[in-house]
Amino acid sequence: MKMIVDLQEYSYPIWIEANCLDSLSNQIDTSRRIALIADEGIPDIWIQKVRSQCPDSFVLRFAQGESSKCFLQYETLLKEMIRHDMTRKDAIIAIGGGVTGDLAGFVAATYMRGIDFYNIPTTLLAQVDSSVGGKVAIDVDEYKNIVGAFYQPKAVWIDPNVLQTLPPRQVHNGLVEALKTGLIQDPSLVDLFEEETLDLTQIITRSIAIKKHVVEQDEKENGLRKILNFGHTIGHAIESAYGLQSYLHGECVAMGMLFFIEDPELKKRVLSIYDRLQLPPLPAYDTKELMSYIRHDKKAKHQSVSIVKVPRVGTFTIEELSYEQIEFILEKGALA
Amino acid sequence: MKMIVDLQEYSYPIWIEANCLDSLSNQIDTSRRIALIADEGIPDIWIQKVRSQCPDSFVLRFAQGESSKCFLQYETLLKEMIRHDMTRKDAIIAIGGGVTGDLAGFVAATYMRGIDFYNIPTTLLAQVDSSVGGKVAIDVDEYKNIVGAFYQPKAVWIDPNVLQTLPPRQVHNGLVEALKTGLIQDPSLVDLFEEETLDLTQIITRSIAIKKHVVEQDEKENGLRKILNFGHTIGHAIESAYGLQSYLHGECVAMGMLFFIEDPELKKRVLSIYDRLQLPPLPAYDTKELMSYIRHDKKAKHQSVSIVKVPRVGTFTIEELSYEQIEFILEKGALA
Ligand SMILES: NC(=O)c1ccc[n+]([C@@H]2O[C@H](COP(=O)([O-])OP(=O)(O)OC[C@H]3O[C@@H](n4cnc5c(N)ncnc54)[C@H](O)[C@@H]3O)[C@@H](O)[C@H]2O)c1
Ligand SMILES: NC(=O)c1ccc[n+]([C@@H]2O[C@H](COP(=O)([O-])OP(=O)(O)OC[C@H]3O[C@@H](n4cnc5c(N)ncnc54)[C@H](O)[C@@H]3O)[C@@H](O)[C@H]2O)c1
Ligand SMILES: [Zn+2]
Ligand SMILES: [Zn+2]
Repeated sequence: MKMIVDLQEYSYPIWIEANCLDSLSNQIDTSRRIALIADEGIPDIWIQKVRSQCPDSFVLRFAQGESSKCFLQYETLLKEMIRHDMTRKDAIIAIGGGVTGDLAGFVAATYMRGIDFYNIPTTLLAQVDSSVGGKVAIDVDEYKNIVGAFYQPKAVWIDPNVLQTLPPRQVHNGLVEALKTGLIQDPSLVDLFEEETLDLTQIITRSIAIKKHVVEQDEKENGLRKILNFGHTIGHAIESAYGLQSYLHGECVAMGMLFFIEDPELKKRVLSIYDRLQLPPLPAYDTKELMSYIRHDKKAKHQSVSIVKVPRVGTFTIEELSYEQIEFILEKGALA
Repeated sequence: MKMIVDLQEYSYPIWIEANCLDSLSNQIDTSRRIALIADEGIPDIWIQKVRSQCPDSFVLRFAQGESSKCFLQYETLLKEMIRHDMTRKDAIIAIGGGVTGDLAGFVAATYMRGIDFYNIPTTLLAQVDSSVGGKVAIDVDEYKNIVGAFYQPKAVWIDPNVLQTLPPRQVHNGLVEALKTGLIQDPSLVDLFEEETLDLTQIITRSIAIKKHVVEQDEKENGLRKILNFGHTIGHAIESAYGLQSYLHGECVAMGMLFFIEDPELKKRVLSIYDRLQLPPLPAYDTKELMSYIRHDKKAKHQSVSIVKVPRVGTFTIEELSYEQIEFILEKGALA
């Protein structure tokens, strides 16, 4: 199926379908020079599928992992664009997870002040989250996504088949972001997590439909889009404090959401979904330590943080909480 | 006076008036944290004028000259943004010539995916040209402006008084871009260059009015905006081949325009304006050498270049010329 993200002159299609990668050249002009960008962990088969449709293409690989979202890698890729004589009419296709999409997207956003960017997300997280919304970025030291742009792709292909090579833990990691979307906006998306078999294509499709709707209303994240941060304030703090070695991003977001699901019945449901997804339990944390990351994360001049809460499934509220209030919530614990 | 550049949600005012710098705090919120960015050549008086109106500001200086439009300087400034805890609600004010505006603008475009950017151009070139149009960029090796963005400022202040400290050669350099604008679009702007005294404020105002009009019709340089490249194809080649030590950008553009002014009477008028502006004469050049830069500049896959010509004052045509045709024109010389 084809979904259109409607952002006026920046509108673009998202193709969601098994094997949609095979017909990419029917949808865009692949006769141009095309840079295929992927980290070293992306299996060759997916890259070859695309490359075989792009006669004047070349592949740029970089080391896998968050640490590649850095100035040095950004600069290196830009110099490769120059070396390959890429012009304003040429294009970049990212094939990979959120790291690849964010990095390659920022290169596309800024090479010659912006060239065409296409995205083929190959992790579930990238499919349901990072490939929709036009946020591209790199990190500086511990500041994640601090340098970047809003730059919409010209098309996105989501082929559930690419998930065949993705380790299950990575699949579950991405599913957390889909569950998050359901919790704040769509009860029936949450229901899908309780079906006998997980229908990934359906989960992806619904999840994108909602994210797309939110982004359409708030492209530059001045308002509504903040609801997508549900679970992320405490989640990011856990990720910074304990995550680098032990947890994935989605796993931390899962932990962070628990603190702000207000309906005890819903919290129970969510916990059993976490079991099913084999998510790690919340570690014994140090409230003071997490608080230091939360203050830091917000580069706090203000004395409060906007927090998204879920009173009932599919609904949200946004509240300004003081640091004291958040500290109190952390002390009470996630299961209180 | 106040002119509005009309780009829908990205519209912004340009203030053009002696001493308009003194009332900046009436026009924008200067209570935020503000980074004032300027190269080391910008006289302190202009910076202090602005700083005195921004209670929570700090000044970032960098070495003057084109070579500061580089990755390293870009990265350094972004790290300063972080170090000063700049948030998405804070702002950057550039105070300087095109180098400062291009570099600081690119920092503003990408820090936290874009924060408010204000521009105070202090060279005539920046006032009539680089401060209008939203092009921001850095260079990579010999590739000028190859990495950047289209990012509109939120306001621009043009205070002709700042030109009091600018060396006359720099003033004349900027006047060439204004003359260029007149030649392609406005006979009466060309007339201003033949008045007994040069009325800089009037020249700046008219010149901006035209550039603004062109940019409004073609923000991302997909069409009409190319006419602003009049004189630049050969001009850039001269700049690359001989300019780095000897000539300024405007001086090279002046040379480049001569080749494509078709009316001999007009060419005579223009040459006497060049005399008045004390522009250096066209050097004895090596056609083959210039051709190698022209091919390089276009990262040529195509076998032709779009060239802007001026048949009569205030009018333009755009023609696709083959490299052979350009070579022939260079061989004939500018005064043919
Ligand atoms: N732009 C946004 O809106 C947005 C939203 C959420 C997250 N993000 C960013 O996304 C990044 C995380 O993305 P991620 O979780 O996809 O991580 P990732 O891109 O690092 O991918 C995880 C790992 O899976 C491997 N991989 C990818 N596809 C595979 C496949 N099909 N088969 C086998 N291996 C495969 C990769 O090589 C990598 O090692 C973070 O940097 C985060 O900031 C961005
Ligand atoms: N963005 C655009 O659309 C655009 C258009 C044209 C040119 N440009 C860029 O502009 C740059 C050239 O700009 P420029 O000619 O202004 O050069 P510049 O910024 O280097 O300034 C020239 C010199 O004048 C000094 N200076 C500036 N203001 C002064 C003042 N009021 N008094 C005394 N000294 C002062 C500076 O310190 C500098 O040494 C190039 O990098 C070019 O690529 C950009
Ligand atoms: Zn997330
Ligand atoms: Zn110019």
